[in-house]
Amino acid sequence: MSTEEPPPELPSQPRRRGFRTGRLEAFSDGVFAIAVTLLVLDIAVSADAGHHLLRSIADLWPSYLAYVVSFSTIGAAWLAHNAITEYLDRADAAFVRLNLLLLLFVSFLPFPTRLLADYIGEDSPERVAVTFYGISLLLTTTMLLVLWRYAVRARLVRPDLADEEIQLLTERLTPGLGAYVVLIASGLFLPTIAVVGYLGIALYYIIPFRRLSASILPKRRRRDRAGH
Amino acid sequence: MSTEEPPPELPSQPRRRGFRTGRLEAFSDGVFAIAVTLLVLDIAVSADAGHHLLRSIADLWPSYLAYVVSFSTIGAAWLAHNAITEYLDRADAAFVRLNLLLLLFVSFLPFPTRLLADYIGEDSPERVAVTFYGISLLLTTTMLLVLWRYAVRARLVRPDLADEEIQLLTERLTPGLGAYVVLIASGLFLPTIAVVGYLGIALYYIIPFRRLSASILPKRRRRDRAGH
Amino acid sequence: MSTEEPPPELPSQPRRRGFRTGRLEAFSDGVFAIAVTLLVLDIAVSADAGHHLLRSIADLWPSYLAYVVSFSTIGAAWLAHNAITEYLDRADAAFVRLNLLLLLFVSFLPFPTRLLADYIGEDSPERVAVTFYGISLLLTTTMLLVLWRYAVRARLVRPDLADEEIQLLTERLTPGLGAYVVLIASGLFLPTIAVVGYLGIALYYIIPFRRLSASILPKRRRRDRAGH
Amino acid sequence: MSTEEPPPELPSQPRRRGFRTGRLEAFSDGVFAIAVTLLVLDIAVSADAGHHLLRSIADLWPSYLAYVVSFSTIGAAWLAHNAITEYLDRADAAFVRLNLLLLLFVSFLPFPTRLLADYIGEDSPERVAVTFYGISLLLTTTMLLVLWRYAVRARLVRPDLADEEIQLLTERLTPGLGAYVVLIASGLFLPTIAVVGYLGIALYYIIPFRRLSASILPKRRRRDRAGH
Repeated sequence: MSTEEPPPELPSQPRRRGFRTGRLEAFSDGVFAIAVTLLVLDIAVSADAGHHLLRSIADLWPSYLAYVVSFSTIGAAWLAHNAITEYLDRADAAFVRLNLLLLLFVSFLPFPTRLLADYIGEDSPERVAVTFYGISLLLTTTMLLVLWRYAVRARLVRPDLADEEIQLLTERLTPGLGAYVVLIASGLFLPTIAVVGYLGIALYYIIPFRRLSASILPKRRRRDRAGH
Repeated sequence: MSTEEPPPELPSQPRRRGFRTGRLEAFSDGVFAIAVTLLVLDIAVSADAGHHLLRSIADLWPSYLAYVVSFSTIGAAWLAHNAITEYLDRADAAFVRLNLLLLLFVSFLPFPTRLLADYIGEDSPERVAVTFYGISLLLTTTMLLVLWRYAVRARLVRPDLADEEIQLLTERLTPGLGAYVVLIASGLFLPTIAVVGYLGIALYYIIPFRRLSASILPKRRRRDRAGH
Repeated sequence: MSTEEPPPELPSQPRRRGFRTGRLEAFSDGVFAIAVTLLVLDIAVSADAGHHLLRSIADLWPSYLAYVVSFSTIGAAWLAHNAITEYLDRADAAFVRLNLLLLLFVSFLPFPTRLLADYIGEDSPERVAVTFYGISLLLTTTMLLVLWRYAVRARLVRPDLADEEIQLLTERLTPGLGAYVVLIASGLFLPTIAVVGYLGIALYYIIPFRRLSASILPKRRRRDRAGH
Repeated sequence: MSTEEPPPELPSQPRRRGFRTGRLEAFSDGVFAIAVTLLVLDIAVSADAGHHLLRSIADLWPSYLAYVVSFSTIGAAWLAHNAITEYLDRADAAFVRLNLLLLLFVSFLPFPTRLLADYIGEDSPERVAVTFYGISLLLTTTMLLVLWRYAVRARLVRPDLADEEIQLLTERLTPGLGAYVVLIASGLFLPTIAVVGYLGIALYYIIPFRRLSASILPKRRRRDRAGH
């Protein structure tokens, strides 16, 4: 082998096309799964809760709320990550690095979640905790969009993918950014509203509008065709 | 590419049939495995246990009991999840979301497990802890049944699956719900009995009646055939 | 094969032959990896260690020793588990349940590891901690042997596997049991010796005698043949 | 089956060629993912932080710095591990054991990370923490190089791999060792500089020089050819 890279005449070298996405997905799934499961470690009653355990459990509602919001957000991020890698033909070096950056934010989320659970309802620190939490969610979602846009720009997506499908996923990922910015700002005045809003964004990502419409549209088209 | 979706004339588009179940299983396996392994973090002797360590270790029996019951329940849920995805031809968007909801309950289980370990034997809080624990197990099992019934109703199961096999899994998943309700109610009066009952349900799910019968039945049938 | 298995007329039912080993391995790998990684959570200097941090770090040698012994033991168990599933043609229901029981012991190991790290060098509690630790290791190794013997007896191993290979793995897994019993007993008098012994057993399992001989033997045979 | 090993005449026995790399990668991915995700557990504000939460969050900068450095280092190690296994044709017994040793160091990293976060800025203990941290990173990187060199020497790499590619990865992994030694030494006098240096090494590993050049070179060559 005198040359450094195989000559382009050789057609079939699938492994050289880029990074194997298998381990990238396995590692990402691991980080998502662990981040989501570590959230429960921060739910705890105080040591002297035995005298009024029912009330202590009920008083933990901020922890449950934080748990549900963070679980939903990480779940939504995992779904979006799934959609991105599902559309991927291959990964390149930069994609793998951007993915690491996304995971850095994802695995950081248990910390702001704990702050949120600890300081909700405590007036002044509540605003700080909610804002800090919102910024962490914003960074995570931004990285998802960056990852997706990079994949599209670097032509890593599958060649058989329709432009409209690419557009649809971009449109699906984008509005969350604006919503987070608005909620972070309003959280300075109405922290609880912001938290509910964060849950709303996560649910918006989770509830499958895109897929629903994707499965409705073909039917309609077929009906149109049948109507001919 | 003028049309949004590929024309239905093209027959072979396996990836469009639905969500890839590979990552769904990998993510679920991760959450199940982590939830089960985090349980041990809540087993600890007190700081001054050194003077009478043997007794301190023995006194932790509620922790061991809670560990075994929760491990068995999550193990049984993993087995049931396995049976469901084994029967699955593909997943759709709603299935993936219901699966996330199931995982939300599964990864929550270490918290009621810790409460159970901490308050067993402490009269009044014991009832609260046992009831809270039972409700958490009930929610997890209910979600498994919801997931399975949805898969059947949305025709996600493999087309070559006999109706009897579908029925068998439904029958296998259902009675646990009633048993949990009865045990939660009786746990208000006899908490320890309820905990033993929870272990019983988990073992009922784990011990492979269905599979046993499945491997016995064919033999009988063959014997019948041989008897002709 | 006229009995016990579906009639040979039906050719293609690979999935019915037994449990998919893929998820069993993924779940097991998850539990092994998490158990091994959680060990580090129990290594910590005291809160006031800042004044003499170098010494505090050095004084943690029991924690490092416990970390290395438990990591090696779980690593050895993972290697043995790997060897077992590598030899497996398929899994059946009972194998999956026995595997769950093995994982119950594996994911329990961080607790006796913590006790060992906390009480080594503290005379009386040290014996308790070392004995408790040894019993936990013994249970884990016993379950590995039970799993393997069950797989052999239930004819789950690959049909092309030579009896000698089966025998070799059995012989490899067995002596550890006796060694653990001896070490547990001697640990009542010489706890530190027992801990070093536990490390020795783990290293014995890890150092690949079997594979070495397997790779040496064929060469020798070829040489013999060449000598003809 | 009269002979112990299949006769060498039979050519196609892929599974005998060595250890399946699938589970090795899955287990390694698990350990990398968990180690990276556990780092967040050590980021916490003090219990009385509520009065000045914004400041408490800001005062945690050593924790964030330690988090980013350790995340980057483990991420870089994962990338290097990926490159190694990507080049691997098969694994042998010794490779699997060396890999376990690498994972022992990787899963240990959260402990020095915690020390670093706790003692940065505290003069005398800071030097100890930074040195201990640097040695841990050095050991991890050394093991990666040992693993790779072993794979090359034991001829485990893919036969179609050009010598230059092997050389490139070796050159990529080597300079980190020297840099770590220099930084560990200078950290005794300038601890903060050392930490920044550790981040620099991790980023050096992460930023894909090799791959960049690999994707630039073919283009240039094609251009040359087009120029003919």
